[in-house]
Amino acid sequence: MAVPDSYIELAHRLADAARPVVRRYFRTPVGVDDKPDDSPVTIADREAEAVMRAILARDVPDHGIWGEEHGSERMDAAWAWVLDPIDGTRAFITGMPVFGTLIGLLHHGRPVLGIIDQPILGERWLGVSGRPTTLNGKPITTRTCDTLAKAYMYSTAPLMFPGDMRGPHRALADSVKLFRWGGDCYSYGLLACGLVDLVVEASLMLHDFCAVVPVIEGAGGRMTDWQGRPLGKESDGRVIAAGDAAVHAAALAMLAGGAAGKAAT
Amino acid sequence: MAVPDSYIELAHRLADAARPVVRRYFRTPVGVDDKPDDSPVTIADREAEAVMRAILARDVPDHGIWGEEHGSERMDAAWAWVLDPIDGTRAFITGMPVFGTLIGLLHHGRPVLGIIDQPILGERWLGVSGRPTTLNGKPITTRTCDTLAKAYMYSTAPLMFPGDMRGPHRALADSVKLFRWGGDCYSYGLLACGLVDLVVEASLMLHDFCAVVPVIEGAGGRMTDWQGRPLGKESDGRVIAAGDAAVHAAALAMLAGGAAGKAAT
Repeated sequence: MAVPDSYIELAHRLADAARPVVRRYFRTPVGVDDKPDDSPVTIADREAEAVMRAILARDVPDHGIWGEEHGSERMDAAWAWVLDPIDGTRAFITGMPVFGTLIGLLHHGRPVLGIIDQPILGERWLGVSGRPTTLNGKPITTRTCDTLAKAYMYSTAPLMFPGDMRGPHRALADSVKLFRWGGDCYSYGLLACGLVDLVVEASLMLHDFCAVVPVIEGAGGRMTDWQGRPLGKESDGRVIAAGDAAVHAAALAMLAGGAAGKAAT
Repeated sequence: MAVPDSYIELAHRLADAARPVVRRYFRTPVGVDDKPDDSPVTIADREAEAVMRAILARDVPDHGIWGEEHGSERMDAAWAWVLDPIDGTRAFITGMPVFGTLIGLLHHGRPVLGIIDQPILGERWLGVSGRPTTLNGKPITTRTCDTLAKAYMYSTAPLMFPGDMRGPHRALADSVKLFRWGGDCYSYGLLACGLVDLVVEASLMLHDFCAVVPVIEGAGGRMTDWQGRPLGKESDGRVIAAGDAAVHAAALAMLAGGAAGKAAT
């Protein structure tokens, strides 16, 4: 089932509503709490999610909602919105403008629409199943890259890769042409633009990747878990996004030889 | 000796000249070479440095010049300009707008003026000995932070800390409230704005830190090597910048207990 135009318009309205909230708190002394999982959360996160949830409650009260800060409801609904008001809270609270607001839409558990919005730079990526991905309205595509040896790769932080994931990740990072830590959702946007070839992460929650999948796929890339399976509500939080299927397959092979392979046996 | 106003004006003109060059190549398919030290260098680096050198050659032909891409000349002169056209080449070539153009001025080997210019975001930090640091013309200051346990810390990349530097750096990063990889010169700008408390790096060249020292000091922070000595032409490339003297001292003590201490004995 194609995503109705009205849901695309609604997604833009959610991003439009969150943007001024996030901008208002950027580079101001915001109170920072420590969540049980040790990630910092700010008043900006909570307020930006609240304004989006209010719109959803009014316009599509029968849809499900999964939000990073305020929990989930009706996640068994056919359509469910998945919100991460500030992906990259560490970047946000240190004034680094490469975090993003993530707005995803699941249809029966599969990501079918996604927005990555950068409120400070005014950049908005939109991906919708069956349509070309756009950045601020202009179609974008991933680039070709036929081997890991030529690939530019990002991952957000080493703490994403505890235990037996660390070795395979390290081996993969050592095999590419350029590796850089510190991307959050912004690195997926750069991949969709053809500036980065590979983003590999783990320990993600649904709200961290749900919006990203349609952005990557609509730009011509591939995004799966570390075993090559489609991402969705039941995924284990390990993701691999690539602009070119050849690099996706090569990275998958390296990761499957390590932690992901072991986990499967 | 105070820095003459005409040199401050000259520094701005250098940044103004480099900015459009860097902007023109940002997010375009630039050719990337591998330098002997494995850092990627692009045509944008070379052209941006060339336009700055041309201005210096015309306006202050007796001054020294140290440039990352085109070498050094007259470095025994009383005044010497230190240029890094794109600090954060990995960020630049992947389209991440948190690199910077660094313009430093040495007087008898000591940094007395520095500009950190972000060409895409239009942000320019200016630090001059004896004057308050500014961001786009507005004075900024570091924030107070009385203990490592409250500090936000950045370092650019793990490969900066080979061998016996790795352990002390890791211990320090584990002792702060928030640590994030991936800053390049931009993280020093954030420190000068009071958004980050500590930046610790190593394996730096003169052009990586010369412009930064006056920016940090003019904002009320401290920036030295890992043994607390002032930075200059003869430094070993290990730097520590802090917004508060208490955090500077605490970080110094942790690092001196490790690699820096060993190197000194």
